[in-house]
Amino acid sequence: MDSLAPALDAQKEALTRRYGPASLPATGPWNDTIARMLEHRSVRSYKPDAVPPGALETIIAAAQSAATSSNMQWTSVVATTDPAKKKVLAEIAGNQKHVEQCPLFLCWVADMNRHATISATEQVEFETMPFLETFMVACIDVALAAQNAVVAAESMGLSTLYIGAMRNDPERVAEVFNLPKQSFVVFGMCLGYATEQGFGEVKPRLAQGAILHREQYDSSTAHDERKAHDEEMMRFSARHELQAGTWTQRVLNRLGPLKSMQGRERMRAALSRLGFEIR
Amino acid sequence: MDSLAPALDAQKEALTRRYGPASLPATGPWNDTIARMLEHRSVRSYKPDAVPPGALETIIAAAQSAATSSNMQWTSVVATTDPAKKKVLAEIAGNQKHVEQCPLFLCWVADMNRHATISATEQVEFETMPFLETFMVACIDVALAAQNAVVAAESMGLSTLYIGAMRNDPERVAEVFNLPKQSFVVFGMCLGYATEQGFGEVKPRLAQGAILHREQYDSSTAHDERKAHDEEMMRFSARHELQAGTWTQRVLNRLGPLKSMQGRERMRAALSRLGFEIR
Repeated sequence: MDSLAPALDAQKEALTRRYGPASLPATGPWNDTIARMLEHRSVRSYKPDAVPPGALETIIAAAQSAATSSNMQWTSVVATTDPAKKKVLAEIAGNQKHVEQCPLFLCWVADMNRHATISATEQVEFETMPFLETFMVACIDVALAAQNAVVAAESMGLSTLYIGAMRNDPERVAEVFNLPKQSFVVFGMCLGYATEQGFGEVKPRLAQGAILHREQYDSSTAHDERKAHDEEMMRFSARHELQAGTWTQRVLNRLGPLKSMQGRERMRAALSRLGFEIR
Repeated sequence: MDSLAPALDAQKEALTRRYGPASLPATGPWNDTIARMLEHRSVRSYKPDAVPPGALETIIAAAQSAATSSNMQWTSVVATTDPAKKKVLAEIAGNQKHVEQCPLFLCWVADMNRHATISATEQVEFETMPFLETFMVACIDVALAAQNAVVAAESMGLSTLYIGAMRNDPERVAEVFNLPKQSFVVFGMCLGYATEQGFGEVKPRLAQGAILHREQYDSSTAHDERKAHDEEMMRFSARHELQAGTWTQRVLNRLGPLKSMQGRERMRAALSRLGFEIR
């Protein structure tokens, strides 16, 4: 049993970094893949070094290996290393300098154009296309693929950052890449090697008691778990000089005022202009 | 260099299983995590054996370690091992027997109730909640978490299956788990050990030339890549006695007739009844 002790210590340390010492979940099966995932952090500072040869193709192979609903394969990816393009995208994203700084930027596309083209070529009407359900499935497919890409990239020692702010101006992003109708960048992704100071601390999450329910939804501990998470995030924020001290304050700031949406309240109109009906 | 040769062989074999021998992408960095992801297959036949102690908690820790937009943490999970509940869910899913058969079934919840409760408790109006953008972000957050769960589970030797058919009747699923307003099961997930015959062949995907674009969207090879994928899928279907021979035929069957949506064309109305506005 002694030989398992170091692994158990590593597991407990990883869980402590993710949940704080007061909220450790049960330990269980453990391996390098899981350890890497627990170590995930979003990185906002990149070295100029390019990703190694074949890394992009391997990351895409991992992405395409994720499940895809009914094998419809809704995902496309546009990869850019062009400084001029990354500069425009950084501007769209509210001047996020890491978008320009990272050596490789991926745009993850819900590509319903692929299927619209099949409909036209094969002269079969696709009655299912204009519904919210179909749009949702395409976005979910893209997310599953992208998360596999993140896990693959991090397993190679690369770091990543999702850039939801591509949705600040979906039409302009579509113009940058000459996207066809009925395709849409769901989010971007920075890829590259983190700088030393950019590879920060693992961010705490709500305790499992707040989010994992057994047999039925149970919110009886939600309030206490939120308060405990607030305290953990307060300590994290103090260490990182973040403005919103508690998690609750961050939620209030982000979800309260309409202006925090940076124009994304017009998503339905933007998508309509890009050829999506979403009925 | 000789010591790398077996790894390179394994990589090429894995890529061949995923893309077919005629469409191999460039090889690149390789490790056990990536190899496991390339080996993913959806499993529809499970042994009765329970998942090991601590596996669920470790899988959830991996899920919570995925990126979450602005740290909003929209995800909840309801886990069930109850045969009676799984039976009802299997019925909702169009009598998918594996939903009943798998030892552990997870429902992945876009949980905006958590935040609505914070709004009420803290007496701050959340102006951003009724928009399509916010709903999309919640669903994407759930998908990122769920995909980490899949990777973690498979790294332990477990198999998985996404069950989108929970959306055939979102209101009834919500009733089964007593979900509060503004929460919604985006998809379910079977978890367990695959039976020998249930652990099937890796399913081929479109070649990277069809889905990976460099610097700008380029559909010039889309038609030829689709035809090549049709041939690969035709061989796969013949080996597995599947009805839709080619990928194109599968797309036509799935996206053409409205009846293939199994009622999900009413998603907007169902979500409205569950308290989502999606403006």
